[in-house]
Amino acid sequence: MDFSIIRIARTVLHVTNLQASREFYVDGLGMIETESDNQHIYLRGLEEHAHHSLVLKKAQKATVEVLSYKVAKEQDLDEIEKLFASKGLKTKWMPSGTQHAMGRTLRVHDNSGIPLEFFAEMTTVNRMLQRYDLYRGAKIQRIDHVNCAVPDVQKAYDFYVENLGFSCSEYTETEKGDLWAAWLYRKPTVHDHAFMSGPGPKLHHFAYSLSDRLSILDCCDVLASMGYAQSIERGPGRHGLSNAFFLYLRDPDGHRIELYTGDYLTTDPDLKPKRWDLNDPLRQTFWGHEAPDRWFNETSSFIDIETGEEIIYQEPLLEQRKPKIMV
Amino acid sequence: MDFSIIRIARTVLHVTNLQASREFYVDGLGMIETESDNQHIYLRGLEEHAHHSLVLKKAQKATVEVLSYKVAKEQDLDEIEKLFASKGLKTKWMPSGTQHAMGRTLRVHDNSGIPLEFFAEMTTVNRMLQRYDLYRGAKIQRIDHVNCAVPDVQKAYDFYVENLGFSCSEYTETEKGDLWAAWLYRKPTVHDHAFMSGPGPKLHHFAYSLSDRLSILDCCDVLASMGYAQSIERGPGRHGLSNAFFLYLRDPDGHRIELYTGDYLTTDPDLKPKRWDLNDPLRQTFWGHEAPDRWFNETSSFIDIETGEEIIYQEPLLEQRKPKIMV
Amino acid sequence: MDFSIIRIARTVLHVTNLQASREFYVDGLGMIETESDNQHIYLRGLEEHAHHSLVLKKAQKATVEVLSYKVAKEQDLDEIEKLFASKGLKTKWMPSGTQHAMGRTLRVHDNSGIPLEFFAEMTTVNRMLQRYDLYRGAKIQRIDHVNCAVPDVQKAYDFYVENLGFSCSEYTETEKGDLWAAWLYRKPTVHDHAFMSGPGPKLHHFAYSLSDRLSILDCCDVLASMGYAQSIERGPGRHGLSNAFFLYLRDPDGHRIELYTGDYLTTDPDLKPKRWDLNDPLRQTFWGHEAPDRWFNETSSFIDIETGEEIIYQEPLLEQRKPKIMV
Amino acid sequence: MDFSIIRIARTVLHVTNLQASREFYVDGLGMIETESDNQHIYLRGLEEHAHHSLVLKKAQKATVEVLSYKVAKEQDLDEIEKLFASKGLKTKWMPSGTQHAMGRTLRVHDNSGIPLEFFAEMTTVNRMLQRYDLYRGAKIQRIDHVNCAVPDVQKAYDFYVENLGFSCSEYTETEKGDLWAAWLYRKPTVHDHAFMSGPGPKLHHFAYSLSDRLSILDCCDVLASMGYAQSIERGPGRHGLSNAFFLYLRDPDGHRIELYTGDYLTTDPDLKPKRWDLNDPLRQTFWGHEAPDRWFNETSSFIDIETGEEIIYQEPLLEQRKPKIMV
Repeated sequence: MDFSIIRIARTVLHVTNLQASREFYVDGLGMIETESDNQHIYLRGLEEHAHHSLVLKKAQKATVEVLSYKVAKEQDLDEIEKLFASKGLKTKWMPSGTQHAMGRTLRVHDNSGIPLEFFAEMTTVNRMLQRYDLYRGAKIQRIDHVNCAVPDVQKAYDFYVENLGFSCSEYTETEKGDLWAAWLYRKPTVHDHAFMSGPGPKLHHFAYSLSDRLSILDCCDVLASMGYAQSIERGPGRHGLSNAFFLYLRDPDGHRIELYTGDYLTTDPDLKPKRWDLNDPLRQTFWGHEAPDRWFNETSSFIDIETGEEIIYQEPLLEQRKPKIMV
Repeated sequence: MDFSIIRIARTVLHVTNLQASREFYVDGLGMIETESDNQHIYLRGLEEHAHHSLVLKKAQKATVEVLSYKVAKEQDLDEIEKLFASKGLKTKWMPSGTQHAMGRTLRVHDNSGIPLEFFAEMTTVNRMLQRYDLYRGAKIQRIDHVNCAVPDVQKAYDFYVENLGFSCSEYTETEKGDLWAAWLYRKPTVHDHAFMSGPGPKLHHFAYSLSDRLSILDCCDVLASMGYAQSIERGPGRHGLSNAFFLYLRDPDGHRIELYTGDYLTTDPDLKPKRWDLNDPLRQTFWGHEAPDRWFNETSSFIDIETGEEIIYQEPLLEQRKPKIMV
Repeated sequence: MDFSIIRIARTVLHVTNLQASREFYVDGLGMIETESDNQHIYLRGLEEHAHHSLVLKKAQKATVEVLSYKVAKEQDLDEIEKLFASKGLKTKWMPSGTQHAMGRTLRVHDNSGIPLEFFAEMTTVNRMLQRYDLYRGAKIQRIDHVNCAVPDVQKAYDFYVENLGFSCSEYTETEKGDLWAAWLYRKPTVHDHAFMSGPGPKLHHFAYSLSDRLSILDCCDVLASMGYAQSIERGPGRHGLSNAFFLYLRDPDGHRIELYTGDYLTTDPDLKPKRWDLNDPLRQTFWGHEAPDRWFNETSSFIDIETGEEIIYQEPLLEQRKPKIMV
Repeated sequence: MDFSIIRIARTVLHVTNLQASREFYVDGLGMIETESDNQHIYLRGLEEHAHHSLVLKKAQKATVEVLSYKVAKEQDLDEIEKLFASKGLKTKWMPSGTQHAMGRTLRVHDNSGIPLEFFAEMTTVNRMLQRYDLYRGAKIQRIDHVNCAVPDVQKAYDFYVENLGFSCSEYTETEKGDLWAAWLYRKPTVHDHAFMSGPGPKLHHFAYSLSDRLSILDCCDVLASMGYAQSIERGPGRHGLSNAFFLYLRDPDGHRIELYTGDYLTTDPDLKPKRWDLNDPLRQTFWGHEAPDRWFNETSSFIDIETGEEIIYQEPLLEQRKPKIMV
């Protein structure tokens, strides 16, 4: 590979009411509002020195515009364009300055149809890590990963591992040996990008890393006292896969966000991916309530990088099965 | 009143397998095993200087033998006997030494049929509060309360408040003003004894107080790693009533135990009981998953203080209603 | 005794700068400001339904006006006046309304010269326990105790135990059997009032109870980010006596406040006081840095209930000794 | 660079009493004992899938044998040998199997004289991350970093950054612009290796990463209950540099170990090193007690990779200054 992807770096969400989103993400979850105008809010976690890791964009309909990866250097973008073009996948350049606080970006659709974006430069700002007087709610630290439903996980896996340089930390197979879900990483944590078999491409959730378990409990208390108790969709509980202690929330537009803490480092190149059988009870949640149906059935739609139209999802190749609890 | 009840002091449970219970309560929950013989295990929390607050007694069937209250002094027992006798309620003396580590005890049935026990003396032992090297699982600190389902909550309330000297911290009424549930206390916390409308008399659960919320999460992790993930019935979550952060577990025999932390002191005599309407959403759980059906429907049976026979339950007077989430 | 003291209920401090105090207590420690005018700030903890537990009163000099106890009922005040008068101790009535939000109060000096106050009625307000959106800093829950230096601990002990109905949970003796320090309670926790041998009468510190240890660490982080790192005088650490996890702070006027969590209930009348030898290393801090000299040497002065003059302290009867670490 | 160093991977300590060390590290700190024989104990953290990250080797004198780095692949070792040889630095091969559970290793002295070791292969074992029933004490997760005193920090910095491929996250300069301390990393955290100006080469401490702050407090409680309260040398407190919440302990032989949690990820290649002035109070501990003198003055000696003789230390180039609190 002639390029190096560093990490998942931001999510661009379309939301229908900026003020409602601000209350949820800033007052409820404790994100830092770096900047905003009447069409956008730019948010980051307390640890982040990048300008933002979440863009909320006012729109008529709640969708996901793009998932963004930071790369090591400018030239990587050209190499990545060549790769996508060679595969016959759509690409689109956005010159520096087109997007606020961003250098030149390359937008593409991956081989599952997910709109991705690559960039090397984003404005940097101060870490707020030691502004404890500003800590609120979940005290969100940094973006951790995105999780997408796709019809063909093996196809997505092959592309990300062979062409984009991702490694696999953990994965789930059916009894026949079909790949049902995979946790893939560039930064040395359990994942930057997970794929699960399902109608897609769809964004199942995006996730932020927290400092500890109590930040999740504090967030539940704060959300409940603000009238958001119904935004808590699943958890708190402990994942078997990844070992993370988790909480799933639905934002005012229905986008799903996971609060996540307690996975492990994956620095070692000789780390073996951990296999889970789809029927293995150990694959399921380590402990916690069953996920409600809507956790399985409701996801956010992506839009096309050129037309802005909502992307039509495909049914999954593998038989759809609802595990008792899936992570 | 010519006597003074101090606090709920112990629960005597019949269990079918002492070793299975020991593994759950000692290794899983972190209780201290003060003593045991081949028919009994005597357990206490880390803070308790009383010999035990839980007796597990080997039996053919899992039932509840008695709920015990500590009184201020020996003579109180005689006054309490007079009271129960004057009401036509069954009483029974157990001389000092009849029960291990206990002074003279008075057993009775209250006006709902619940088997109660009163005593002034129990052997004291060392607090293990500073033996942090022995802390395990939930790091259980001390017995907090018992919660009973009874057919007529008003009747139970009147007896405990007017005759036994309890105070009420919080209560739930139907829209017609019928008392549906009540939280009653002698020690200055939210409760020693709660009553809820339901088929009874039955023990819904007994509860232990913990130092903090993380003790509950640690307990979930430890139980899951020991293979007890299915013992977690409800929670973790936050109660609206009492404000406690909670977890409900089912022990190997199906007895329900609540891990409980975060309520408040009720020292002030001018404290007004807090009223909740049965239909008020604020009465429900502050945040957390819905309780499963079995949390509402399954309870432990009491046995008769004289015959040892299981006590037949009565249907509740008030229309049975399952709130979305009840505490 | 013909009266019943319920608990330590408030401290009235003279401070030189109300705004500096507000920033420290409200923004830094997370107390709720119930009300204020240009001469007073009335503060309470999140759990407290009493109007306030701390009064900050603007003055030329930082002193302690009075320590207040709540009693069970109005008539108790008259009985207490009789007691103090019979002992030849000064008493002074303040009619209802003289002090904001307070009923009739009786002010006295105890037999060590400490200005005490007794009252049955204080305006009640809403508990903020479930307003988690307002939680800040140390998330202070409720007033816990006061700790006074007096020249003759035995004399203070005798008066509080024999005449005022306090019980002793723990105490320290010299090798000769002289009482060096005592922890006395009315509400069933380790103490409402502690006495230590030293130049006095002086207030060593007043203390608030917190929900958990992390509230103390969060408070350190918040204070440091606000520029108050130097206000942290001692801790965090764990006391041997009482088992509490603690932090000592100095407010902008030098008054010492302890943040305190993790002691135990003292409900049982047959509880034996725990004796510590002054030379016993186990008496010392369970773990933690040594207390700095100023922790031993600096205390707050009381003022006379009639003249308002600062009370002259007396040297202690027992030889002054600085233990390696004292609680 | 033709090689890739992954991360700090282990410390090999000489200790005088294996059983005393086992009690401290296993029972007190909660490390997992992977294996041992009568001359060695091999320990790892709960998250580690490598066979060990700490070797305790029985010896007459307590010293540090070597600090080990994992590299990406076998051939990297040959390239590293070339580098050290080209600089005229001592190298020594230890064939696979010479050291238990290790592949071929290259030992060297760096340009400060520190004995380093590089390896690509170590036996892997199961992560114990989800064996919560085995969690004890500090619940140590994984090795985080080592911190060495050297006479010339600039010289060490240049070698590690220019020749070994390390990056700098934070550093301290004197007012004249001399480099006084540097935090250098290969894995994307704040550091794998820190250098401070002082008599050296010496090991100041090695550090383990924990999941959260309460693990540090729990460890203090457990150590104190085991009689190790005096092993706590400094903390708990919060570092300004790195933002970590910390505790410094001395093991039974006087080796210093830091328990460390709460720093941040350093994945981004465009991250600017954070400069601190030696006289800047902000450089000092964010909050916490002053470090005692022994924290500054006592360090562990290294031994020569060939002779096994203790390495003689040199006085530092820069004027020795004790900051009020140094991290």
